Amino acid sequence: MGFSAIDYEGELFSCFAFHAALVILKVLLMVPLTARQRFAKAVFSNAEDARVHPKGKVSLVDPDVERVRRAHLNDLENIPFFVLIGWFYLMTNPSLVIAKNMFRLFTVCRYLHTFVYAVVPLPQPARGIAFFGAFLVIVVMTVSVLLAAF
Amino acid sequence: MGFSAIDYEGELFSCFAFHAALVILKVLLMVPLTARQRFAKAVFSNAEDARVHPKGKVSLVDPDVERVRRAHLNDLENIPFFVLIGWFYLMTNPSLVIAKNMFRLFTVCRYLHTFVYAVVPLPQPARGIAFFGAFLVIVVMTVSVLLAAF
Amino acid sequence: MGFSAIDYEGELFSCFAFHAALVILKVLLMVPLTARQRFAKAVFSNAEDARVHPKGKVSLVDPDVERVRRAHLNDLENIPFFVLIGWFYLMTNPSLVIAKNMFRLFTVCRYLHTFVYAVVPLPQPARGIAFFGAFLVIVVMTVSVLLAAF
Repeated sequence: MGFSAIDYEGELFSCFAFHAALVILKVLLMVPLTARQRFAKAVFSNAEDARVHPKGKVSLVDPDVERVRRAHLNDLENIPFFVLIGWFYLMTNPSLVIAKNMFRLFTVCRYLHTFVYAVVPLPQPARGIAFFGAFLVIVVMTVSVLLAAF
Repeated sequence: MGFSAIDYEGELFSCFAFHAALVILKVLLMVPLTARQRFAKAVFSNAEDARVHPKGKVSLVDPDVERVRRAHLNDLENIPFFVLIGWFYLMTNPSLVIAKNMFRLFTVCRYLHTFVYAVVPLPQPARGIAFFGAFLVIVVMTVSVLLAAF
Repeated sequence: MGFSAIDYEGELFSCFAFHAALVILKVLLMVPLTARQRFAKAVFSNAEDARVHPKGKVSLVDPDVERVRRAHLNDLENIPFFVLIGWFYLMTNPSLVIAKNMFRLFTVCRYLHTFVYAVVPLPQPARGIAFFGAFLVIVVMTVSVLLAAF
């Protein structure tokens, strides 16, 4: 099937750029979210950081801080790959409606994932659904690119 | 030397897209690989996850689960950078034969890396060879881009 | 405002490619930096790795090794997103002077961050300033892309 150049002034690219920026913004938000937990619990990873807080101590096992850090790591396991494979996917002549809704599904799922993981922890399957909704989008785009490359 | 636009309908881009999708697919496969170990050992990172398994317990130090997670983290330390620097590398007018074989070497090495790390653990230097074969590809592409940017 | 195609032969793209390659090179340097600490302390993550050193032992909590690994993880939380959002940012018709200086600021800050975190540990706010200088660049580029996508 092959690949073709992206129309950077078109609607599809603009939608992709918007959702890529939204999910990258979501990763950036992990920084204040982690800082909030660190200062609330006075728990830091390094001796030089602990000194900035009157009660600061070094710990790598605080459950509330580690929960936020696991959410952050899960972002790293998913969000860069969405943006990376998305660029190739745009060149496979996807259906505009399908592509735009996949981008939206991914973004909504990743925001929900962080919310139920690290803001207001909820019982499963809340996080599982959010995770697999977003994961499915990456899988579909990756398979589409593999098929286009044959 | 400078950069020039990519021919998205050409053989080189198609080969890059194919290998980028293959290694991203490899990262995605870490999800079932991790889940398999978690359910086999009934070990989870969060209390709400442990509840989905009758014998589920929370542990962040199970050696079999952590081995798979280290393989996953090693992917994050390498695979996104292969795809990111690869885009620039395509614009440096590389030799078609060299570029295609570098993409293949990277993909084979990263699949082998996961296999000997997290599927059937093998003695060194198995994993070291797989790691450095792939790492060398990223180094060569990065240096090529730096030279082209002068 | 919208997006427009990148001039791959222009000065702005060349500057972006140069800095992207420089910060990716910085991530690659974490590999010898980690290896240096592992061999100095004879501390490894896996039994098969510990066997390559006469006094090698398995430990996941050595403070000097973990410090380097935290610096590496912090790279993964920032550097891929700089390159990913940078591609979109180039298409928003940014000011050449502002864009080039943002790329330079990011690169300098990330090299400094690793230096004060994992080479010669310095008291805060050294690492904080390096972190937020680079972080601010990603934030500004992400907001610029969101605005352009409206």
